[in-house]
Amino acid sequence: MALIVQKYGGTSVADLDHIKRVADRVKAIYDQGNQIAVVVSAMAGVTDQLVQWVREIETKQSNGEYDTVVSTGEQVTVGLLAIALQALGVPARSWLGWQVPFETNCFYGSARITNVKSEGIAGCLAKGEVPIVAGFQGISPEGRITTLGRGGSDTSAVALAAALNADRCDICTDVNGVFTADPRIVPGAQKLDKITYEEMLEMASQGAKVLQTRSVEMAMKHNVTLRVISSFLDSGGTFVLGEENIVEQEKISGVTYSCEEAKVTLVSVSDKPGTAAALFGPLAEAGINVDMIVQNIAEDGKSTDMTFTVPRSDLQKALSVIESNSIKLSFKRVDSDPNVAKISVIGVGMRSHAGVAGTMFSALAEKGINIQVISTSEIKISVLISEEYAELAVRSLHAAYGFDAE
Amino acid sequence: MALIVQKYGGTSVADLDHIKRVADRVKAIYDQGNQIAVVVSAMAGVTDQLVQWVREIETKQSNGEYDTVVSTGEQVTVGLLAIALQALGVPARSWLGWQVPFETNCFYGSARITNVKSEGIAGCLAKGEVPIVAGFQGISPEGRITTLGRGGSDTSAVALAAALNADRCDICTDVNGVFTADPRIVPGAQKLDKITYEEMLEMASQGAKVLQTRSVEMAMKHNVTLRVISSFLDSGGTFVLGEENIVEQEKISGVTYSCEEAKVTLVSVSDKPGTAAALFGPLAEAGINVDMIVQNIAEDGKSTDMTFTVPRSDLQKALSVIESNSIKLSFKRVDSDPNVAKISVIGVGMRSHAGVAGTMFSALAEKGINIQVISTSEIKISVLISEEYAELAVRSLHAAYGFDAE
Repeated sequence: MALIVQKYGGTSVADLDHIKRVADRVKAIYDQGNQIAVVVSAMAGVTDQLVQWVREIETKQSNGEYDTVVSTGEQVTVGLLAIALQALGVPARSWLGWQVPFETNCFYGSARITNVKSEGIAGCLAKGEVPIVAGFQGISPEGRITTLGRGGSDTSAVALAAALNADRCDICTDVNGVFTADPRIVPGAQKLDKITYEEMLEMASQGAKVLQTRSVEMAMKHNVTLRVISSFLDSGGTFVLGEENIVEQEKISGVTYSCEEAKVTLVSVSDKPGTAAALFGPLAEAGINVDMIVQNIAEDGKSTDMTFTVPRSDLQKALSVIESNSIKLSFKRVDSDPNVAKISVIGVGMRSHAGVAGTMFSALAEKGINIQVISTSEIKISVLISEEYAELAVRSLHAAYGFDAE
Repeated sequence: MALIVQKYGGTSVADLDHIKRVADRVKAIYDQGNQIAVVVSAMAGVTDQLVQWVREIETKQSNGEYDTVVSTGEQVTVGLLAIALQALGVPARSWLGWQVPFETNCFYGSARITNVKSEGIAGCLAKGEVPIVAGFQGISPEGRITTLGRGGSDTSAVALAAALNADRCDICTDVNGVFTADPRIVPGAQKLDKITYEEMLEMASQGAKVLQTRSVEMAMKHNVTLRVISSFLDSGGTFVLGEENIVEQEKISGVTYSCEEAKVTLVSVSDKPGTAAALFGPLAEAGINVDMIVQNIAEDGKSTDMTFTVPRSDLQKALSVIESNSIKLSFKRVDSDPNVAKISVIGVGMRSHAGVAGTMFSALAEKGINIQVISTSEIKISVLISEEYAELAVRSLHAAYGFDAE
């Protein structure tokens, strides 16, 4: 008997039939004698419609009305799932964010959970009930509904699992788990049985899109055992764990790619203290999220080239910011390229295994793929290449690291 | 400067354009220096969709999940209307039922308001804000969302107006006010400028359908001045007031009809004590709402005929109840007729004016309309006639009482 938190996303509760199927899955776990709390998202598409209505009227910064409107999506699904479980004879009841409560700060639209008061839910579980909890939402200190930002239901589920000290938090979704590469690109991609939080964090932010980054950070902080699993297939899924729980560590866990960034290079920036601050300060103020930053030594001792990436959708804004700060920055010219792909290999094992980088560069060279920029972290090597080679690169690397299924 | 509560129904907030038009109306009142609180329903059709979803899954008695799901309709409109007002530069904020709070009992799906804690709303008004309040919903003693039953937004508005001691409660709807008869049936029907609570109660329950009965009862109890007014036309509307505020009282205020009832007659029921209880007790237990009840004297001293009406949709259920109690009741046979119309003339003035009934019966006789059953109250005379004569009867009576516009 275990205490399990399961989260079902929007495609898993897309209509009444799906909701009934989720109820069947939950009942099966309940009937095995487990305690189970379920966190659900809004029906797929519903949140988009609500957001669109708000955007069509709104002219200024959100101040809570957005959250009040958008949070109705989960409010509908928790009620319907509770009823569906009751119809199967399982005692269930819905819990809204403010009822649990998930206490958050006042950043409406992208609030952060500050505390989960789980006594109510724990009491519900102790009585043998199945609490059905609205994800994505909480309550602010001023008593108004807040939302956690897109994908926040994952974070709700992990926060609840942490507060309840649950044995496991299942993220039930439309994929079977975390793969060594995107199966749509690499047919031989293999499902991973286990992965560390750190690797999952890199995978999530590199485009794997299975889990919201914040939820993995929270799981890591509170040591919550996560499992990414299919909502409706029996696949075993992928466990996301602390490194200490993974005995035999592969060198690398996967190959990921992202085509959502653009490259910007400032050519011949003067190499003096304060240049980086003068560049990235204004970019941050403009709300532009800078990812890779590469600066090489100044060959002539006076000027250097500075390359970085920004979200592709923010490229024009970034160029404007640079333009309006051009006097302070003093550079020769700006080059930019929206058609780049970021390819990464990820794995905690690379810390202790030489040759991971060498394998990567050789595999790309063999295919004639030019590496534009290289950036490394402790468990990741990322390169920027021309976008047109993205899929070829991922497939080549997947094979080079011996991942392709026999 | 006045303190006004306005309620807008589902057709008045049916889409974003309508919501923006409501915002314009509210802004106009606000700009005149008034304090205004707005109560809104769900977008027309939304509640029906939500109810349908619940009904498609639910197999047993509602226990709060219905309310959690269905209350999202108003939650969306309060947020959107608040944003629309903010976009016009009016400080507005939404209030959900649990935030006000509207405290109710635990009868989920048809809860009754037990208390309105209006301090929060009053503080909002005092700051110069416009509170946008979700109608139809409240919070139970166990902290769960309740709904007041269909049309409950009228009741929410009146309860809020009473708690705030508002100068007026406007029910803004898709008609211009209360008419002497249904304008779709009687082209010459005239809008009433004023009507008493008692008359409005009879009008509401007789099919005028402008105001929910409970809201009129509550307005009468707390002496809240109601006004039924068009959401978008400047028509002046109809005031619903205490009798003491109406100086010159017309004899009758209107002619109403209802084709939603069926007539049942138990022929030759034994005329002994306990018969009525043996009949109406089981009907009440079955949840069947009996309206008119007519029993005449027993001519032979032993048996009599008992006639009553039930909602047409409950006729078969009522006949089953009678059948299963037939031994206790001892009657000769049951006649039933679903094709009856109830025609009523209503007016507090008829108390002191003879001849109201005579005028009614003469007018119907002139058209050859047979009166099947007569029932009277202090301010109302109702008759049952064959349904096919309903419109003719209403038009004839409207003319007979001198209502037709010159």
